[in-house]
Amino acid sequence: MGVTQKLAGNCADLTYNDLPDAVVHQTKRCIIDWLGVGLAASQQETTQILRDHILKMGGNPQAYILGSDQYVSAEQAALINGTMSHVHDFDDTHLDTVIHPSSPVIPAAAALSQWRGASGEQSILAVATGIEAALRIGMSVCPAHYDLGWHVTGTAGVFGAAVAGCKIEKHSPDKIAAAIGLAATQSSGLREFFGTMCKPYLPGHAASSGLRAALLAGMRFTSSDRALEAPRGWASVLSPENRLDVIEKDWGTRFELLRVAFKPYPSGVVTHPVIDAILQIEEDLGPDPEDVTSILLEVHPLVLELTGKKSPGTGLEGKFSIYHCVATGLIRGQVGVREFTDEAVGDPQVVRLREKVSAEISNALQPEEAIAHIHCSDTSHTVHIRHARGSVNNPLSDSELEDKFLGLVAPELGKRRAGRLLELVWDLENHDFAELLGAAAGID
Amino acid sequence: MGVTQKLAGNCADLTYNDLPDAVVHQTKRCIIDWLGVGLAASQQETTQILRDHILKMGGNPQAYILGSDQYVSAEQAALINGTMSHVHDFDDTHLDTVIHPSSPVIPAAAALSQWRGASGEQSILAVATGIEAALRIGMSVCPAHYDLGWHVTGTAGVFGAAVAGCKIEKHSPDKIAAAIGLAATQSSGLREFFGTMCKPYLPGHAASSGLRAALLAGMRFTSSDRALEAPRGWASVLSPENRLDVIEKDWGTRFELLRVAFKPYPSGVVTHPVIDAILQIEEDLGPDPEDVTSILLEVHPLVLELTGKKSPGTGLEGKFSIYHCVATGLIRGQVGVREFTDEAVGDPQVVRLREKVSAEISNALQPEEAIAHIHCSDTSHTVHIRHARGSVNNPLSDSELEDKFLGLVAPELGKRRAGRLLELVWDLENHDFAELLGAAAGID
Repeated sequence: MGVTQKLAGNCADLTYNDLPDAVVHQTKRCIIDWLGVGLAASQQETTQILRDHILKMGGNPQAYILGSDQYVSAEQAALINGTMSHVHDFDDTHLDTVIHPSSPVIPAAAALSQWRGASGEQSILAVATGIEAALRIGMSVCPAHYDLGWHVTGTAGVFGAAVAGCKIEKHSPDKIAAAIGLAATQSSGLREFFGTMCKPYLPGHAASSGLRAALLAGMRFTSSDRALEAPRGWASVLSPENRLDVIEKDWGTRFELLRVAFKPYPSGVVTHPVIDAILQIEEDLGPDPEDVTSILLEVHPLVLELTGKKSPGTGLEGKFSIYHCVATGLIRGQVGVREFTDEAVGDPQVVRLREKVSAEISNALQPEEAIAHIHCSDTSHTVHIRHARGSVNNPLSDSELEDKFLGLVAPELGKRRAGRLLELVWDLENHDFAELLGAAAGID
Repeated sequence: MGVTQKLAGNCADLTYNDLPDAVVHQTKRCIIDWLGVGLAASQQETTQILRDHILKMGGNPQAYILGSDQYVSAEQAALINGTMSHVHDFDDTHLDTVIHPSSPVIPAAAALSQWRGASGEQSILAVATGIEAALRIGMSVCPAHYDLGWHVTGTAGVFGAAVAGCKIEKHSPDKIAAAIGLAATQSSGLREFFGTMCKPYLPGHAASSGLRAALLAGMRFTSSDRALEAPRGWASVLSPENRLDVIEKDWGTRFELLRVAFKPYPSGVVTHPVIDAILQIEEDLGPDPEDVTSILLEVHPLVLELTGKKSPGTGLEGKFSIYHCVATGLIRGQVGVREFTDEAVGDPQVVRLREKVSAEISNALQPEEAIAHIHCSDTSHTVHIRHARGSVNNPLSDSELEDKFLGLVAPELGKRRAGRLLELVWDLENHDFAELLGAAAGID
């Protein structure tokens, strides 16, 4: 029996009672974070375009578009909700693979769960199993796969969405194996599109394709049962290196899901230690931006590769520019979604300060580490961040996660309704996705 | 200006009047062939499952499921009609790349054309431009891309579907470039799934994804304008080798579309010279199958790699087994869709004969060439096929193409209606896809 069939069997066997408390708790943290960043994208242009498109295509009323009572088909809900989750680039991250797991996985589970009337426990199990499968498949090919240019949130995320869908459908191992095959042949997404609307589109596409894979597999659509490991299977074709044994290793006892981190700032995750440093400088010195002579950053090599845009032109591009992150952080003393609008990125004061920022690669630094030196007309200051906020060694607490959620959601929905959503997720085993999505739409 | 933008500009500039008569004629041949093989798949299990799924999801009434008056959304029509086109593995082939171009491209053009009410001329232009783009993009990475394990009908087909959609929408070059980007990040499909329902699903997925790319691009969805050529663009990530200059070379004067070939038999294209040989033997000798001692085939290396299944268990697998093709051809004296049902593949007489067939690779042979030696109890015979029927050097005539169409369609729709469809396609510049699809559904 190969790794595809073993994974399918492991996913089929996993029950809610098998999940350690910490895994159930972490799954709820993922759902809270997903819901917050998704709801905050309701008015964004990417969301509006995709919503217009979906409403033109039409569909049976099965699941909500996030934050609205607009019913669309389960496939379409997965597509748009998966996209919304990633619009702000503020969603959770598995740092070892750079997979954002919740964006492709939870929308598939949520849409299918609402349509099928699945219980809260079953939904938690579906999300946990889907994320675990996506992360392990991603780990089997990363970093070589990511380095080649694949956007692993899409390429591995589609498997997670498929598995989550299968768990809502309570599929047998052979159907899960078929769904994994259907996911493999739809697996796509390139890093070239970072900084464009195609980036958030990808987890939506993965969620929708994965959901369809689960449904077709349930109707006996046939596939290969060696989708991952065959000589011309997914791993060989999409990655120059792989180690497929990690997919099954310690399944059910070690949960990679516990290593998923939550972002304090809505920009590329590698910018976070630098942002921590500049916010610390702002708090320590509170310098007049016009008085700053230069800012020098020392960063891990990946930082400039992923977020080295020197002159971002849009809010989206700003998320991939440490220069913008640093300038806006120092001037505004905060780095939230409002610091990544087109206007915020074009702000002349920010642009002027941005031009004084330079960065050097240091191979001695970890990705979650950074050093910032600031020189003003009459003073200098250095801050060294060892573990960025939100990284595995310095995770956001539940309370910080709630604050992030409320900061994103309360301005739109009001504090009372936002607080009600938090209560529902923390107690999801006694509720369900239909109730949660209804409450997010103002129906409760 | 890079190759993505140049291609977008070339596609935008191409008008119906730029198309040589031979290209218009060949485009109609593609449409006839596509319509025939698609209609013949109406009752196949793959089609039924996908139709059930689509009807569950629901959609606005925009375009027909092929051969029915069931209106679904344009995206869904592209999905199912793209799948139906490839169910019998009987659709057209560009032999240099092994792309089946009509299956992903025409369904996108047809669905959008019906929804938007595009003219016949505009639809012919959309199909021709889409196929040309898909073939040139495929040529820029093949054979290395295909050898790695990519199912190029999906990976390159999605670009063709996107471009065809853009031509129906009359997009400007910048919108076509964005659609190419959206296609690139959805580009997927693995050869591992040959012989399963995932194979025909892929051109459907490509058609639907490409159509969506064209529509989103029209609404100002943003993308990279270097999707193909960027250092981590589509060509570099999906292929170990590429020569992107072929995408623009002689655009508008040389049409790769003219090299698309039509299949006389509904099996993997590399089986065709062998089938020609065995049908020739059947005609020359008419041997009693039970009297055959052995059949030895000499074939191009690709034949065993692609169609070397020794013991196919299903009709689908039979299409990828030269052993089955030869056995059924000799016993029945014909190789049509009825020779690739599960029953035909399991026929004990066929299975017995299949076991007497062996094959040897010969590097001296071309893919369109094969030699068959038959040994019976008291005679032996050899046939050498130099250019298989339907290959570029031995193309099906218009009349043979019509016969293929009528053989596929008349049993279902009757001769009169099948003949009417042929008339409509040959005169498509004075009709349109809405009328053609309506006639195929029995509405005229």
